[in-house]
Amino acid sequence: MKMRENDLIDKIGRLLGRQPYAPRDLRLGMGDDAALFQPRRGHELVLTCDWFLEGTHFLRDKHPADSVGWKCLARAVSDIAAMGGVPRCFLLSLALPGSHTGRWLDEFLGGLLRASRKFQCVLAGGDTTSRKEILIQVTVVGEVRSGRAVLRSGARPNDILYVSGRLGEADSGLRLLRRSQAKVALQNPLVRKHLYPEPRVALGEWLARKRLATAMLDISDGLSSDLLRLCAASQVGARVGLAGFPLPPVPNATRSRSLQAALHGGDDYELLFTVPLHKFKFLPASFQGVPLTEIGRMTAERDVFLVEPNGRRIPLLPGGWDPFQEG
Amino acid sequence: MKMRENDLIDKIGRLLGRQPYAPRDLRLGMGDDAALFQPRRGHELVLTCDWFLEGTHFLRDKHPADSVGWKCLARAVSDIAAMGGVPRCFLLSLALPGSHTGRWLDEFLGGLLRASRKFQCVLAGGDTTSRKEILIQVTVVGEVRSGRAVLRSGARPNDILYVSGRLGEADSGLRLLRRSQAKVALQNPLVRKHLYPEPRVALGEWLARKRLATAMLDISDGLSSDLLRLCAASQVGARVGLAGFPLPPVPNATRSRSLQAALHGGDDYELLFTVPLHKFKFLPASFQGVPLTEIGRMTAERDVFLVEPNGRRIPLLPGGWDPFQEG
Repeated sequence: MKMRENDLIDKIGRLLGRQPYAPRDLRLGMGDDAALFQPRRGHELVLTCDWFLEGTHFLRDKHPADSVGWKCLARAVSDIAAMGGVPRCFLLSLALPGSHTGRWLDEFLGGLLRASRKFQCVLAGGDTTSRKEILIQVTVVGEVRSGRAVLRSGARPNDILYVSGRLGEADSGLRLLRRSQAKVALQNPLVRKHLYPEPRVALGEWLARKRLATAMLDISDGLSSDLLRLCAASQVGARVGLAGFPLPPVPNATRSRSLQAALHGGDDYELLFTVPLHKFKFLPASFQGVPLTEIGRMTAERDVFLVEPNGRRIPLLPGGWDPFQEG
Repeated sequence: MKMRENDLIDKIGRLLGRQPYAPRDLRLGMGDDAALFQPRRGHELVLTCDWFLEGTHFLRDKHPADSVGWKCLARAVSDIAAMGGVPRCFLLSLALPGSHTGRWLDEFLGGLLRASRKFQCVLAGGDTTSRKEILIQVTVVGEVRSGRAVLRSGARPNDILYVSGRLGEADSGLRLLRRSQAKVALQNPLVRKHLYPEPRVALGEWLARKRLATAMLDISDGLSSDLLRLCAASQVGARVGLAGFPLPPVPNATRSRSLQAALHGGDDYELLFTVPLHKFKFLPASFQGVPLTEIGRMTAERDVFLVEPNGRRIPLLPGGWDPFQEG
């Protein structure tokens, strides 16, 4: 028996629509033509959206539905974190086959609900339709205190370049997941970083509130691609030291392989940010358990180099994910 | 030669990113992790989103790319109009094949730009990816004076039921377009209503500002489906008179066929709204050239009937578009 669209909307609304953490200023959530939301005074809105498409961003038979639900929201929330904002509400656009309106949908909504609670970001509306392939698009509305957003364009020469967490973990996890036949890999921490990334909302908000970061973005396509974007937007270059680089703890991986994953692997959703020299002393070695590692310096010269421990310089080329260069 | 994702984003940004009608409060449009937007004081945000997918909502070889660009924004703007709000900015999520990043994309962006200018709704950001099929999702952020939004749930017994424009035109246009082999049909006004719908923003805003409408929605799936939604949300019923019904001017169509299109055809994006009896006198026969037609009365009895000129009552069943009931 086929589900009606109204039933699908009801199901989503029952599970996700009204949450105790819903902001009071979300006056009307699902069920009308549009949602109504009153932002707090003295705040700007932060708006972002992300595709999450079967075949492109996840595989129906490899990725648990629960992870699909978690990750589609987590990656959009990460863009809010990268501005120094906090997420408030989201819109879900969902297209799926009639065959997936049962157990798959329940598990998907379960993961989405966990993410929604974790990030305090409530469902405000969306659109649904029927489709052979599973298509997901998420729009997140966040807030940041007026004038405090951290853009990509604020880095200055001599600023110190930092990264949160370890890079290349999600990429290594994806490789493990692809190789695994069964779902045994789901407890592996690298696989979990790929399936259930944790956007650095608290860190981003703290860096913006304390005015520590001059520029910031989240690493979604890979450090090499995303650092080049930050440099282009700020009209600066960078020297990245490979000596103290936060590599993923992959068993049996060569240093070279780990470095490749750390430089070019996507999906880590760690924050890449710059801090002026004179604010260096305010940066702790870790924030809420997440290591903060100095990986380089910004330069007036517009080129971007990796610097090996022996001082040799290698130009950094974008090696991160570009959907139009795949296949 | 394949396009890079950055080039695609640049192209979209050059064409649509910075417009003279961009609200001053859109502090940062495309090019960062997220957009920043400062809503006006005393206003609430209105948030809505819509799928617009090849094969489901349009056909690559039947619908001009220019119409795809216009309509994907127009239908989301219509949801804002149906709340009594005005659109301010939008996010575009676009997935398309590498083969369509040339002429098709140019024409698509041309139609989107015309819609963006017409509705004074500027591109604030989005997401792009590569895909065999053309997938579009649009999120629109609008504003409405706090407390003035017109919901679906405000209709009361004895309110008069109104509709703007004529119903069934877009459905009749779609039929003509499907039958036509060449693109000769593009000048036909019914086909144009299907390809280039005009959301009733000024009317919706006026009805909200003057506090004339108690409930409102836009007819996207068909009058029968959408009226039943309004009645359910307002916990009322309705009697709809068929005598003065605003039928589409389809040459050679029987009255019965025209009535079917008017009752169940989707994509008209006309406003369906209710007005209390004592405010009836403030409603003009037309608003900025768009006829406003009284088509029925709301009732305390929760059922919804069509009333024929001879007084016979026929229960109204949802016959509008439901993607999960197709194919």
